[in-house]
Amino acid sequence: MSAPSHHDRAHASTGRPRDPEVDRRIALAAVAVFGEAGWAGFSVESVARQAGVGKASIYLRWETKERLLLDGLAAHVAPVVDADTGSLRGDLTALARQLVELYAGPSRQAALRMMLEAPMIPGLAERCDELRQAQVKAARAMVRRGIRRGDLPDDSSVTLLLDTLCGGVIAHILSTPQHLEDAVQAGLDEFTENLVGFLLGSTRP
Amino acid sequence: MSAPSHHDRAHASTGRPRDPEVDRRIALAAVAVFGEAGWAGFSVESVARQAGVGKASIYLRWETKERLLLDGLAAHVAPVVDADTGSLRGDLTALARQLVELYAGPSRQAALRMMLEAPMIPGLAERCDELRQAQVKAARAMVRRGIRRGDLPDDSSVTLLLDTLCGGVIAHILSTPQHLEDAVQAGLDEFTENLVGFLLGSTRP
Repeated sequence: MSAPSHHDRAHASTGRPRDPEVDRRIALAAVAVFGEAGWAGFSVESVARQAGVGKASIYLRWETKERLLLDGLAAHVAPVVDADTGSLRGDLTALARQLVELYAGPSRQAALRMMLEAPMIPGLAERCDELRQAQVKAARAMVRRGIRRGDLPDDSSVTLLLDTLCGGVIAHILSTPQHLEDAVQAGLDEFTENLVGFLLGSTRP
Repeated sequence: MSAPSHHDRAHASTGRPRDPEVDRRIALAAVAVFGEAGWAGFSVESVARQAGVGKASIYLRWETKERLLLDGLAAHVAPVVDADTGSLRGDLTALARQLVELYAGPSRQAALRMMLEAPMIPGLAERCDELRQAQVKAARAMVRRGIRRGDLPDDSSVTLLLDTLCGGVIAHILSTPQHLEDAVQAGLDEFTENLVGFLLGSTRP
């Protein structure tokens, strides 16, 4: 029995209308399997099982499991964006909320694994750099506005602010014992506020 | 062919002097395999291959792969300890250096995976809590001394300071593109100093 080559499979799908709902389900399943088991446990078979589709449905759409994972992450692990709220506190809070969404929301495990496993998966390091660049870009815009307003000294470090903000969110979430997870979810707004207040202290001119 | 039960294996080792060098090599291999492939890729077979020993040597010493992993992590992922250096800056720098050692040293991948995969592995969540408790204990002692000296306000938050210090280290290390890793390793002392200086700003009374 000889399976069709990847090329044939891709060719076989030409012109056939694809069901976007199935695409979406497979991409979500890819993110979930990666989050749960990492790259070592990531296979087309486990994604198919999780999505409730046959392996052929996946091979029709993706040539390799690397592409499958990268597309899933691109669709469901969103980069942060800059928000100009008019104040440094407002800007930092908006950024912190997005980071909380990224690292404590439904894609939590996948987002954390991305950073950890980036060196092992072809193409993933580039995708991580894109996420990071989006964070740096947002943080840089905020710092620039803060300096213009006189809320920040000229020589404020964008990366220190971002590392402590982003890292503070990650450390807070990762350090939660499992039996307290619901309490932590409920307290994330308060945590975000306290974190920003604390970091604003370090940025006083 | 029937393999001897775990009980028989354990029994067979009674009274036989064990080679501590082999124990050490297996424990190191367990940490390396877990760091590389996570729990999904962790097997007695892969640890045996990495350590250059037979699977039987592992089964003689450990009844389950959970115990093998937990013992390896206990031996090679050390909790931080408090250091009273006489100043808040000195204390925080000493703590930050230990965190850098933990998250950027040879056990980097394993230490990060511990936190990420704790909920999946029996006994690992407890081990993570112990590491976390050691961090909280050290940070609490530093903050208490800082308050006594008048370097810190009475209501300073131990957890915010720890989350931003520890998280800042993790974020800095995780956000490094692979091609810059050598430069980051070389700059860790400077980073630690800058991070502590930045956070000291937030703790000004």
